[in-house]
Amino acid sequence: MESTRRPRLSPAIADLRRAVRGLLPDHGLVLVALSGGADSLALAAATAFEAPRAGLTAGAVIVDHGLQAGSAGVARTAADQAVALGLHPVLIETVRVTDAEGDGPEAAARTARYRALDDAAAATGAAAILLGHTLDDQAETVLLGLARGSGATSLQGMNSTSGLYRRPLLGIRRAQTRQACLDAGLTAWSDPQNFDPGYARVRARERVLPVLERELGPGIAQALARTADTLREDAEVLDAIVLGLVDGMRVPAESGAALSAAALAANPAAVLHRIIRLVAAEEFGVSLERSHTVAIARLVIDWHGQNALDLPGVRVERQGGTLIFSAPRPTHSKGLFLSHGTS
Amino acid sequence: MESTRRPRLSPAIADLRRAVRGLLPDHGLVLVALSGGADSLALAAATAFEAPRAGLTAGAVIVDHGLQAGSAGVARTAADQAVALGLHPVLIETVRVTDAEGDGPEAAARTARYRALDDAAAATGAAAILLGHTLDDQAETVLLGLARGSGATSLQGMNSTSGLYRRPLLGIRRAQTRQACLDAGLTAWSDPQNFDPGYARVRARERVLPVLERELGPGIAQALARTADTLREDAEVLDAIVLGLVDGMRVPAESGAALSAAALAANPAAVLHRIIRLVAAEEFGVSLERSHTVAIARLVIDWHGQNALDLPGVRVERQGGTLIFSAPRPTHSKGLFLSHGTS
Repeated sequence: MESTRRPRLSPAIADLRRAVRGLLPDHGLVLVALSGGADSLALAAATAFEAPRAGLTAGAVIVDHGLQAGSAGVARTAADQAVALGLHPVLIETVRVTDAEGDGPEAAARTARYRALDDAAAATGAAAILLGHTLDDQAETVLLGLARGSGATSLQGMNSTSGLYRRPLLGIRRAQTRQACLDAGLTAWSDPQNFDPGYARVRARERVLPVLERELGPGIAQALARTADTLREDAEVLDAIVLGLVDGMRVPAESGAALSAAALAANPAAVLHRIIRLVAAEEFGVSLERSHTVAIARLVIDWHGQNALDLPGVRVERQGGTLIFSAPRPTHSKGLFLSHGTS
Repeated sequence: MESTRRPRLSPAIADLRRAVRGLLPDHGLVLVALSGGADSLALAAATAFEAPRAGLTAGAVIVDHGLQAGSAGVARTAADQAVALGLHPVLIETVRVTDAEGDGPEAAARTARYRALDDAAAATGAAAILLGHTLDDQAETVLLGLARGSGATSLQGMNSTSGLYRRPLLGIRRAQTRQACLDAGLTAWSDPQNFDPGYARVRARERVLPVLERELGPGIAQALARTADTLREDAEVLDAIVLGLVDGMRVPAESGAALSAAALAANPAAVLHRIIRLVAAEEFGVSLERSHTVAIARLVIDWHGQNALDLPGVRVERQGGTLIFSAPRPTHSKGLFLSHGTS
């Protein structure tokens, strides 16, 4: 007997589509950040399917870092695949990676990539940029954060939503994106850098996670991703609580943020430090160094008429019973400025 | 030329003594929990040296679980070593491990061990019990917590001080305790269970940490221990903040804890849940299940005249604008009780 039913949809493709469906914006254009690798190619295919059904337009942006021989060809192939999937517009952004910050080549390439994606979103008016990071990427990020031992922040991994960026595949395994490409007849590009053991991330993926899975698993990648989720939730709770505390300490001010020194001083030192860091971050976009946080805390708990603190990105001073955070003033101390510039 | 200088103290012994010195109580008797293994034997030796110099008496307690053939002999040898080190009193506590809770043999042995240590402290009036957990134990604990993926609490590892218990060696590597024993001419017992790959902890130690160290290290054990420290500090900050919030919500009550429902409702759900869990833990020693926390939260944010919640260890009810936590009442609903008991 001949079956007339439609062939069953590949489970991998179905999972990816469902994941994308859950994280699309309400309207407008979404851009898929496409490298041509299995993760972003499967994401592009799922988005090309889902976006029109949600009343959205879907395009793609390919960033050519120019760091590997043949990168222009890889970008061209990915662009052709995006066009064939029905995505429009399809942009190739060619960037030059310069490590001006001295953070190393990986960080410099990442900075250049996100800047190019931001540019593409601005040029097209996109409502969201979809990134192809998977559960495996999240697990690797947590492992690398652990290896640094720098605390909760580096274990929180990646957010599923952060500004324009959305990561629909954080619950999807990398093997599923490969399977989805296979099932869709899409040939993914295999980035040789993904196998270069010179990168810590590659070693985490190829050498560490399999051992963890075998000895402490199964399910270690999911456990690492879950850890990131719960730590991120904890951090959000803490920030929400601290912001509530801060609101209760505000006193009227012409500009900037003014807080009651007495209300601040009623907190344990660790809480006071966190309040100070959060005000600087939320209101001035400044990530304070620990020594600066401690100096600001001294204006609260060890007040003896200190001068205003002119810190990078924020000025903090005490006036009577009030601690005032304000925008930094243009420096009047040329000598100090020069000594910073040449040290 | 013949040197008349004293031979230089072994650096390992010096490190251990310094660590113990930093965590001794002010006065009284300290008991070292001694297994005869390198960690606790080196701890016993360092404590025997440091305690009298701090005006303290130092003894030892050896727990014989009776789980391995020859365990009585191992305990006897350890006790002899403790006496030879000058420790007094030296107690051998023989325990029977029964897995009444159904938590598995490892957990049952741990429960029995801590109970025996508590008994020894009560019998001798000890001011502190010193445990030989090292930095390596802490790193393994964090790894095992990660593998469970159960969030920040299981990554916080062990506290250096917790009630009567103190862990002076959390900053000391296991290799240093072995070296200290060697340098002091002490023969440590090598527990065959420490090499049994049937235990997840042994696999974490023998198979996972060396790979992490090689691929993502050096310093991975320290990084894991540092992660535990910072997460523990974060949790303490959060608890301190939440307790402060709770104090601002209290309304007068005859007994138990009474909080303003309106003040509670002003918090985001995650914060509200944390407040509820903390009140139950701090005031009634109860660790609430998530479903119970959610049910209590509904008394705040979805109030429609629900009955009081009789939960294990705590009763929570709403009276007008007040949420009241109180000690559980003797049950009047025999049927309900029986149905619990026989389900």
